[in-house]
Amino acid sequence: MKSTDNLLTPTPSAYTYPLLIKQLLINAMSLHADQEITYRGQMRYKYRDFRQRIGQLANALTALDVRPGSTVAVMDWDSHRYLESYFGIPMMGATLFTVNVRLSAAQILYTLKDADTDVLLVHCDFLPVVEQIREQLPRIRHIVVLSDDGLVPATGFAVAGEYEALVSRADAAYDFPELDENTKAVTFYTTGTTGDPKGVCYSHRHIVMHAMATALSLCSPMGEQRLHRGDVYMPITPMFHVLGWGIPYIAVMLGLRTVLPGRYLPDALLKLRETEKVSFSHCVPTILQMLVAGADKTGQDLGGWKVIIGGSALPAGLCEAALAKGMDVFAGYGMSETGPVVSLALNPTQGQPLSAGENLRLRTSTGMPSLLVDFRVVDEDMRDVPRDGIARGEIVLRSPALTPIYFKKPEASEELWRGGYLHTQDIAVMHPNGMVQIVDRLKDVIKTGGEWVSSIEVEGLITQVPGVHEAAVIGVPDEKWGERPMAFVVAGAEVKPEFIREQLLAHVQSKRISAYAMPELDRIRLVAEIPKTSVGKINKKQLREAPPALQ
Amino acid sequence: MKSTDNLLTPTPSAYTYPLLIKQLLINAMSLHADQEITYRGQMRYKYRDFRQRIGQLANALTALDVRPGSTVAVMDWDSHRYLESYFGIPMMGATLFTVNVRLSAAQILYTLKDADTDVLLVHCDFLPVVEQIREQLPRIRHIVVLSDDGLVPATGFAVAGEYEALVSRADAAYDFPELDENTKAVTFYTTGTTGDPKGVCYSHRHIVMHAMATALSLCSPMGEQRLHRGDVYMPITPMFHVLGWGIPYIAVMLGLRTVLPGRYLPDALLKLRETEKVSFSHCVPTILQMLVAGADKTGQDLGGWKVIIGGSALPAGLCEAALAKGMDVFAGYGMSETGPVVSLALNPTQGQPLSAGENLRLRTSTGMPSLLVDFRVVDEDMRDVPRDGIARGEIVLRSPALTPIYFKKPEASEELWRGGYLHTQDIAVMHPNGMVQIVDRLKDVIKTGGEWVSSIEVEGLITQVPGVHEAAVIGVPDEKWGERPMAFVVAGAEVKPEFIREQLLAHVQSKRISAYAMPELDRIRLVAEIPKTSVGKINKKQLREAPPALQ
Repeated sequence: MKSTDNLLTPTPSAYTYPLLIKQLLINAMSLHADQEITYRGQMRYKYRDFRQRIGQLANALTALDVRPGSTVAVMDWDSHRYLESYFGIPMMGATLFTVNVRLSAAQILYTLKDADTDVLLVHCDFLPVVEQIREQLPRIRHIVVLSDDGLVPATGFAVAGEYEALVSRADAAYDFPELDENTKAVTFYTTGTTGDPKGVCYSHRHIVMHAMATALSLCSPMGEQRLHRGDVYMPITPMFHVLGWGIPYIAVMLGLRTVLPGRYLPDALLKLRETEKVSFSHCVPTILQMLVAGADKTGQDLGGWKVIIGGSALPAGLCEAALAKGMDVFAGYGMSETGPVVSLALNPTQGQPLSAGENLRLRTSTGMPSLLVDFRVVDEDMRDVPRDGIARGEIVLRSPALTPIYFKKPEASEELWRGGYLHTQDIAVMHPNGMVQIVDRLKDVIKTGGEWVSSIEVEGLITQVPGVHEAAVIGVPDEKWGERPMAFVVAGAEVKPEFIREQLLAHVQSKRISAYAMPELDRIRLVAEIPKTSVGKINKKQLREAPPALQ
Repeated sequence: MKSTDNLLTPTPSAYTYPLLIKQLLINAMSLHADQEITYRGQMRYKYRDFRQRIGQLANALTALDVRPGSTVAVMDWDSHRYLESYFGIPMMGATLFTVNVRLSAAQILYTLKDADTDVLLVHCDFLPVVEQIREQLPRIRHIVVLSDDGLVPATGFAVAGEYEALVSRADAAYDFPELDENTKAVTFYTTGTTGDPKGVCYSHRHIVMHAMATALSLCSPMGEQRLHRGDVYMPITPMFHVLGWGIPYIAVMLGLRTVLPGRYLPDALLKLRETEKVSFSHCVPTILQMLVAGADKTGQDLGGWKVIIGGSALPAGLCEAALAKGMDVFAGYGMSETGPVVSLALNPTQGQPLSAGENLRLRTSTGMPSLLVDFRVVDEDMRDVPRDGIARGEIVLRSPALTPIYFKKPEASEELWRGGYLHTQDIAVMHPNGMVQIVDRLKDVIKTGGEWVSSIEVEGLITQVPGVHEAAVIGVPDEKWGERPMAFVVAGAEVKPEFIREQLLAHVQSKRISAYAMPELDRIRLVAEIPKTSVGKINKKQLREAPPALQ
């Protein structure tokens, strides 16, 4: 008997419950309709209004010829408009395209074209960019301007109107269709450092499953309820960046009070945290550093603020500084292609209390795999490496929330999914207790004298040197060793390369790193700044091609 | 453009991640492989052994001709064998049929035949029942005996062997197939009081979604983490009864230490709770009453024991008694057809501290709808009744975990799902904050003098009368009023009907109930016992047809 002979066939009247974004609203509307959403603390409304406005947005977009299958691109800071778009656009059966506003005009043009954009919602701040490329986007039928004051600046191209004006005069009643759960809900582009940006796509089902699995992972550890329904949420990872790590969907699903901060200005963020009593956020290390520095200036206590740190590894020094401010920071891991969250630096079952060092190691680790995530660390033949904290391999994944393709890129899609697992190109070790630690990107590993040296490990140790603010390590060609590590370091004036080498030597002596891993004196460069990608990661490609000037 | 034009088509190598029961093992095996499962505290093994034994079970069953699409019935007390069957049988693509061992031999025969049972796993205790019906079950090819001591009693029919012997000599390697997530995973029969038992079916997807949504509902309330990964779990709702409310799947998914107590004997359960440090359970009010009484006898403190109470309403008096013992009891609601859990008596966001009365009302309420559950209270035209705590209507549901059919009963299936919502036949009110309170079963509502009186409400008030242990109220025909309430009461010898009426009168005067709701003196009957169904609910059908004798 084939297994398909045993399928359950629902009675004709049964509702088969496709996993759709609209289902994320049900529980929140039932229990938290009076809960508040605020934009920058200046504008406030309730979840019941939010639900109404989603219907109004859908009617406003329908009037602009948006249909199931259309693509609607959004260029905005984190706003209530963005949150409305997260729901209203996919709920119509259309695709939301979250544009990375930090890309160059040429890259934005490329992605708008590649995504088959039909309608563009664009904040006033980005009109100059659109001005440069409008003519090359004939497919875009309508452009809606997003403006905080309701005013639309003069533009060299036609606009359909201002968002608030269009939405507020639209009818709220809209019968959102029962879609196939595999309908494309959102798309956005990876910010790879090589080649053209690649479009990642998520269906309604992917988004619902990511919300459920990530929320349960955050809510379920013993005594460390990193997320609960009394939390006040403020994203500090842009909503254009991997759907704000999917957390806005979780916040709405659980009915959390939500604070949308607009453009990220450290002082404004700190002020909002205080006045709105924000208790749950997420950001990249660079932003965390600004927040800690900002609180240092004002003496603000950041106690009770739970913050997931992702995008790049959380340096131990920065983690310590944030803990000292009272913040409950812990790392999360994922990529544009993975939903994104696939692991979180949580302790599933509190056993013995942790020492300060263990606590720091836990919080800065890649963490424990999320619920339902099949998280493997494998060698080149796809065999699991030993779970000994030493053996290295690539992280490969299965989960219900991974991108099933790169848009219009069949070869890259197959390469991503070769062998039936999504290949992250991250090199990691797995500890006996299942905790994972990334040691490097596949392409950033430094191959020197037959050994593999983790650039991230060396960066972490340099960051711990007193006076050092930031470090980036790359492999540079070397005749004798193949490659050798080179470090770029941002540090106080008192820090000299000799001092950094001295400190690293101690780690060699304690066997923490091999002698191979230590850069030579002339390969430790003090620089004013380390180049970053549009999402705040160290730009190693640029470091290799055009290293920054000495400080 | 049709919305189907916007479906995401995965690249051929992509894993589309069907929601299968085997996926519930991934995270637990990765993080909690050393966690323990114990049967009655006498036999223990680790999750890694559990995973091995699932493979062994699958090989043992394959040797007995079990194939995808086969039905394997289990008759056992709560055991490690049952938990292995929960996973191993559906993971093969076969269907697990959890037999209600409290039914009569004739009913068990009916359900075994109706479910197309191929293989039967039966505990020694139930061999006498099987002895009576074996000849009428020609389709059953093999019978496996489950025995704690490895011995197989003499039987009048052939047996394939003893479970432990078959499993322990089988190979652990078994390549569980990638099934369609809509494959029938489990079936069991509703214990309705009218007509033939009806088979309810759940697919792999239903079970995974129920586990995710119920776990998140339990884990996410603020400061009331009713479930976390440090909990020790012991079911006290039989695993044959609606999959032990689905909680065994949640326990394994989260890697909880799990205690399987065998047959339910109150003293043994209390002892296991103490020695195994059980912190999370679920049971019906009748069992709760036994546990409280047992702890009364020994003076045992039940502090830190979180227990979901379902099956029937949690009486306020019993709730108080359990709280006094230190138990953290709260109601849950669901039916065989609904996964089962669709609501839980939790407080999503702790606001003001509750008074003792509010606390009691919250804990005994039907509660707040679980995540993803579209939980409506509607009038006869399917319009939502006002959320005012007064207007009554039927609870109708949509969720990703509802039975899509009654097995082989197309008419009953369509009746269950008329209008695209599952009809519960429970009458409830919804409060403005979204909390639900069931007031009665549709068929148990007492229609008297043009008013609807909730039998459950009157039962609750009678239960609060000092000296009263239990009460059941039904409607009996009355020439003048159509129907009148009649109460059957189990109480101490000192309690007289006059006293009960006096106490009810106070509730009439305080407008808590209408004067119509108060039974006449000769309709308050003190009885020795109230008849129960096989799952411990008050058997109102029997009360109507054959009322118990006076005490």
